[in-house]
Amino acid sequence: MPARDQREFFTVKTVSEALAGFRPARRTPVETVSLDEALGRVPAESITAPHALPGFARATVDGFAVRAADTYGASEGLPGYLDIAGEARMGRPPEMDVRPGTAVAIATGAPVPPGADAVLKIEHTQAATAELLEVLRPVTPGEGMVRADEDAAAGAELVRRGRPLRPHDLGMLAAAGVVEVPVHARPRVAIVSTGDELVPGTRAELASGQVRDSSGPALAALVREAGGEPRFTGIVRDDRDALATTLREALPGCDLLVVSAGSSVGARDETAAAIASLGEPGIWCHGLAFRPGKPTLLADCGGVPVIGLPGNPRSALVVFKLIGVPLVRLVGGCTDPPPEPSVRARLARNLPSAAGRLDVVQVRLDGDTAEPLFGSSSLLSILTAADGYVVVPEAATGLAVGSEVEVMLYR
Amino acid sequence: MPARDQREFFTVKTVSEALAGFRPARRTPVETVSLDEALGRVPAESITAPHALPGFARATVDGFAVRAADTYGASEGLPGYLDIAGEARMGRPPEMDVRPGTAVAIATGAPVPPGADAVLKIEHTQAATAELLEVLRPVTPGEGMVRADEDAAAGAELVRRGRPLRPHDLGMLAAAGVVEVPVHARPRVAIVSTGDELVPGTRAELASGQVRDSSGPALAALVREAGGEPRFTGIVRDDRDALATTLREALPGCDLLVVSAGSSVGARDETAAAIASLGEPGIWCHGLAFRPGKPTLLADCGGVPVIGLPGNPRSALVVFKLIGVPLVRLVGGCTDPPPEPSVRARLARNLPSAAGRLDVVQVRLDGDTAEPLFGSSSLLSILTAADGYVVVPEAATGLAVGSEVEVMLYR
Repeated sequence: MPARDQREFFTVKTVSEALAGFRPARRTPVETVSLDEALGRVPAESITAPHALPGFARATVDGFAVRAADTYGASEGLPGYLDIAGEARMGRPPEMDVRPGTAVAIATGAPVPPGADAVLKIEHTQAATAELLEVLRPVTPGEGMVRADEDAAAGAELVRRGRPLRPHDLGMLAAAGVVEVPVHARPRVAIVSTGDELVPGTRAELASGQVRDSSGPALAALVREAGGEPRFTGIVRDDRDALATTLREALPGCDLLVVSAGSSVGARDETAAAIASLGEPGIWCHGLAFRPGKPTLLADCGGVPVIGLPGNPRSALVVFKLIGVPLVRLVGGCTDPPPEPSVRARLARNLPSAAGRLDVVQVRLDGDTAEPLFGSSSLLSILTAADGYVVVPEAATGLAVGSEVEVMLYR
Repeated sequence: MPARDQREFFTVKTVSEALAGFRPARRTPVETVSLDEALGRVPAESITAPHALPGFARATVDGFAVRAADTYGASEGLPGYLDIAGEARMGRPPEMDVRPGTAVAIATGAPVPPGADAVLKIEHTQAATAELLEVLRPVTPGEGMVRADEDAAAGAELVRRGRPLRPHDLGMLAAAGVVEVPVHARPRVAIVSTGDELVPGTRAELASGQVRDSSGPALAALVREAGGEPRFTGIVRDDRDALATTLREALPGCDLLVVSAGSSVGARDETAAAIASLGEPGIWCHGLAFRPGKPTLLADCGGVPVIGLPGNPRSALVVFKLIGVPLVRLVGGCTDPPPEPSVRARLARNLPSAAGRLDVVQVRLDGDTAEPLFGSSSLLSILTAADGYVVVPEAATGLAVGSEVEVMLYR
């Protein structure tokens, strides 16, 4: 069947070409969410401080607000003396100034009174009387306090556009009084599972030959992890017209369309034809130099990116993690994705590959040894048994036993 | 004030001692969730396959189901011949057997008919007539197919207890027809912010000396990331009775109680006293050999673990990530937490530390160089500017410039 093979893999690309070259322009619209709902959401613009933070000079130690120059030369043997002029109260504007020769008692976090330029630690003082302070060590200007704009100057960038919000980003925004954030809407990702053999996961009894749809729920979870909102269209038969109808109906309501194709070459051809009928410019590549993702299809149908995944569940999940997740993030405005966990390990066996092809191989970790797991692309158990995976890059013709490799960890 | 210091740090522990020794027995109850809601949830028991998977022998290539022995010796020069007895239909029980001397056409994913023990790839055949197949290469038993129990034997463990469910775990459960999962309830984590200087994040205008509560929202986000459910109690004044009342009210409705203490030594003493009044066995440690987490308090009050965090926002978040997050996970039944992302880098400067004390130092990454960020514990900007942090372990007296370090990445 050389003719069919040639047609199917006419526009084969490498994974690197796909990641660099298939960059849809589509972005989800901007919506406003409260800080409480903003964890992991992607700011649509940089957010700046409306005023300086903390907004007032603040003590960072328990002790006495002083003029630093008044403490120069003080030592345990020859203490300096300052008049205690009062106490700075936590949470209230200062009630007095620190004049030359005086000190004001202050606790960590309280506002440093005008006139003071340092806070002397309580450990470096001693009370001579209730009104007189012995200074046992000198302090330099700025010590024991932060400036009014030391956490952020007015107008400084607090969080940047395109990077998902982290817990401490939310703390910083709260400190600045920012109560809602403009973020990109979660990309709506339609998931279409196709295959005459597929039945819903709720089917308790199966006939021989039937399998439950496992890719749908697993892809939905990957979409959620990437910040998207999965939408199921149900299971479609391996029939070009039925598939084209389902895809056409799903297209207007989604930001990304994922088709988990039938597993046979014929079913994949039907999927490709149905996708090609959806709109211009159409199929960008049909086939990736990628094991186990060879039959992957990428298309742009009237501005909606479309991914056709291999029919084998394990292949579908591996491809979606490598190609689909970055697309969900991109469409959702995320230009600075969170880091993925990985560890260095040594290969327990040779990993043969072909030059120009990228291989993803699941591994189990035993200490710092990575044991490759081999088996059919139809087996999900290889994924559930794995701790992570190794990528054999396109330039390599394999990796030798004992090589140090980066294991990308599943979590 | 040596007397006060001694009291406060009477039961100081190292971080290692705290992580190993403070292990509350409390676990959240078990609830049942649908597969659709199960991502990241923690199974309360191991879940096994109710039947073998895929449940029938399945073709993994497009081709012909055969008896392997019938193909032995076949070659391009001397093909073998088999009668084509029909076609195995996708998703349906086989309608015929494969008898000696016959072959049945089959697509990837279809059930292998009885009698066949291998599937010959279509590329290794040629159609002589519509009823006669030329076999160009031999196939060995088991080739081109998976066994009925190759993905999972009946009774095999599909997902293990205590490990948060990953996308492919959900796929595996869906394949097995598991539609709901017994999981640990999300730990309810009460968050109490204390401090006379604190006002809610919604306050637009601040008086000098006031600061908005930044720890509350950031801690809530860390709780969510750890699989918990944050509950705010509002802001409490630095007053022992008011604090004790709030804590007593919060205690029965939570699985973990987090108090972000006032920042002064006096306020911390009040917090400790209020926590001590909550119930037996009470305070486990007050003080950690940890920078910036020295004033951390750990307690067990009538079976509810309680964490007293330092008052400085940056310290509070660093301590909660290192000590609090593992506790939230533990109480939520997670014995096998997901891996955290990290990279290796070289230190751009010396990091001094003290033996016996653990230091967490934020760093910014520039290629493979880690530049430490220094500044007051009150500054959140050090966290938002950081890419991650370096841990200087208790045994070290510091790390030298140029040392290779593991940078734990913020995400």
